[in-house]
Amino acid sequence: MNGGMIRFILGSVLKVESVLLLFPCIVAVFYRESAGYTTTGASILSDVECLSQSILFWRSFSHWIGGMGVLVFLLAIIPLSGGSHMNLMRAESPGPSVGKLVPKVRATARILYLIYFGMTIVELIFLLIGKMPFLEAMMITFGTAGTGGFGVRNTSIGGYSAYIQWVVAIFMILFGVNFNAYYFLLMKRFKQAFDMEEVKGYFLIIAAASALIFINIYDKTMTAADTIRHVVFQVGSLMTSTGYSTVDFDLWPSASKVVLIIIMFIGACAGSTGGGIKVSRVIMMLKSVKRELNAYLHPKSVRTIKMEGKALDQGAISSVAVYCITFTLIFAVSFLLVALEGRDLTTNFTAVLTTMNNMGPGLADVGPSKNFGGLSILSKYVLMFDMLAGRLELFPMLVLFHPVLWKETWEGGKRRRRLKRKKVS
Amino acid sequence: MNGGMIRFILGSVLKVESVLLLFPCIVAVFYRESAGYTTTGASILSDVECLSQSILFWRSFSHWIGGMGVLVFLLAIIPLSGGSHMNLMRAESPGPSVGKLVPKVRATARILYLIYFGMTIVELIFLLIGKMPFLEAMMITFGTAGTGGFGVRNTSIGGYSAYIQWVVAIFMILFGVNFNAYYFLLMKRFKQAFDMEEVKGYFLIIAAASALIFINIYDKTMTAADTIRHVVFQVGSLMTSTGYSTVDFDLWPSASKVVLIIIMFIGACAGSTGGGIKVSRVIMMLKSVKRELNAYLHPKSVRTIKMEGKALDQGAISSVAVYCITFTLIFAVSFLLVALEGRDLTTNFTAVLTTMNNMGPGLADVGPSKNFGGLSILSKYVLMFDMLAGRLELFPMLVLFHPVLWKETWEGGKRRRRLKRKKVS
Repeated sequence: MNGGMIRFILGSVLKVESVLLLFPCIVAVFYRESAGYTTTGASILSDVECLSQSILFWRSFSHWIGGMGVLVFLLAIIPLSGGSHMNLMRAESPGPSVGKLVPKVRATARILYLIYFGMTIVELIFLLIGKMPFLEAMMITFGTAGTGGFGVRNTSIGGYSAYIQWVVAIFMILFGVNFNAYYFLLMKRFKQAFDMEEVKGYFLIIAAASALIFINIYDKTMTAADTIRHVVFQVGSLMTSTGYSTVDFDLWPSASKVVLIIIMFIGACAGSTGGGIKVSRVIMMLKSVKRELNAYLHPKSVRTIKMEGKALDQGAISSVAVYCITFTLIFAVSFLLVALEGRDLTTNFTAVLTTMNNMGPGLADVGPSKNFGGLSILSKYVLMFDMLAGRLELFPMLVLFHPVLWKETWEGGKRRRRLKRKKVS
Repeated sequence: MNGGMIRFILGSVLKVESVLLLFPCIVAVFYRESAGYTTTGASILSDVECLSQSILFWRSFSHWIGGMGVLVFLLAIIPLSGGSHMNLMRAESPGPSVGKLVPKVRATARILYLIYFGMTIVELIFLLIGKMPFLEAMMITFGTAGTGGFGVRNTSIGGYSAYIQWVVAIFMILFGVNFNAYYFLLMKRFKQAFDMEEVKGYFLIIAAASALIFINIYDKTMTAADTIRHVVFQVGSLMTSTGYSTVDFDLWPSASKVVLIIIMFIGACAGSTGGGIKVSRVIMMLKSVKRELNAYLHPKSVRTIKMEGKALDQGAISSVAVYCITFTLIFAVSFLLVALEGRDLTTNFTAVLTTMNNMGPGLADVGPSKNFGGLSILSKYVLMFDMLAGRLELFPMLVLFHPVLWKETWEGGKRRRRLKRKKVS
């Protein structure tokens, strides 16, 4: 696949989905938009209740639209950045020929949108059953579906009933599942749907993280049922990078915060609207570490790494490793730049973490009860870059800053101008 | 290379170097020893001045011996863990045949020890010129040579003259250089010595980090010369994982602390006594990220990654990537376990960082003016594991806990007992 084709894909995605991705790039200066379309939901407003309904609706709607864009974007880009195995609907996945690409993407996009739309409506109905006002229910649903997390109230989801909190928690987790699984369910290929390694790993991590935090925070000040609800809600919210909150988890003990930080890094499944490094990448990395260890003990046995039942070639594995390394590098540089402001390390660290993984709230000065409004202009620019980079699977964003691309664009412009002048003369 | 051979190498290193590596494993329960032999220098004593001279000497001597062990250990193990390019004295490096291995290791070890010994003596002389008492000079030199960092005074190196601080700073940095470079210098192959990519990168990072921190902390409370001295000292100390300090860098602004954290992660050159991920691994990772980016723009051009002028194969690159991933995983788990104690995140984070990279002091509760004495037993065990894992290039330490190894040892024991019984009957 050549550079032209990547530009073609990027271009067509941008055009077909119109505002979805191009728009936030243009208006990135407006942090809020960037936080909306990238489904991060990091807010710089401290009082959202004073905003008009239409602004709030727009905020939440941008999440929902952003989530749709992400689904199609992943379809087009993930196969390029070392994740052919994570490809949505592999059966229908586009081959390397441009001619076949567009109709395929369209067909797949239609199915994806159908699932996305269907789940949105189901959540809306469940929320309406919980006696939530219609407009509010719409906005909360949009925030969940896009795993964005802009709330309508200052307390996020904290002020709603236990029923509504459970509905939102469950739907957040469901929107973090690889959409491939839903596709298999729709096609009645149940065995395949329930056999997906990534989805199993995803639920396992959620269960383990919830159990750990529950043990860590459970005391007599709250009933076990309430504690479980808050824990599952928070784990689901941060794992899927939604960022809604029902409690101020910045007040939880250190060990729980570390668990939250770890699941923030892991993120949701590939092929969902969630952010983060993605469960399948983490599973692949764990497998390659295991292989390396085995190679120490039985160096002669050649072991291939299997993912979802298929063997991965060395190229795919090293691509994923390079992805993780790139993630770390961008993280380190952003961490350094944000630290120039002189805030404490936890704030800087989680501010970068939460924006790169398209989460929303971090800890300390950017915790769930605070917001990003107090940060300096430089920090906001850095964090905007991180939001977009995290959302666009890093490389497309880095390529944007690659001198070669600028040179080509520049020279292309010169050539076009020269041709024009020739025509005129 | 098969498992038997790895065990052979491990065994022979352990036997030949007797106490060097086996000893800290046995006495790991005694945190201090573990901190000594692994050249970490993380202390759990708050008042070292009340200790007798002989104990202090033993502490520092353990660093020096540990440093020697590390050099030979690296020689034997690094080629196995994805770093054939980092191999010390590549020309003399052992081939895959066991017969040739032992004499080669001995010859190379002799040269390494010669360089190590020579540099130790030169530093000692420089310190004696600075009018330091002989025994103290010995101990400080041992701590520098092994990049260990046990001090003799409670203020580490802060109480000495500017001259002595400069000497220690320069020798810390010199002991962090790949010993290959010194070997080339000894052989009068100057061009090769000055052309080593890793060494150039190492000095570049030190210069850049020092410049950044200088700009960040320079104010009128201290002369520029003093500031530069403290900055270079601290950067050299943390980059080479020595851990000596002249000032309490925990009081520096956030941006400087982030720079320090980043260079702690990077660490010294491969083939030195320093810890960390190692400059050459970082350079390789940067190169592979660059290649990935280029592949986006010019996917048809096949680019090989070159290191020290030689092309690296895909296996070596993915080994290094897996090393970095493993590092991250051990880091994350340790971070979680240490956090169970409920201290602040900066303490937990830097405690793990500083022990895994065999540094010494971290930030906050484990900062240069504090120590590890107040941590819980669990945290101490975790950090001991981290010190050993960091020192032993991760995998040998993980292999120790691999069930296969235990099973084989167990079954081997049973077989031996059975044979014995047969002989008796």
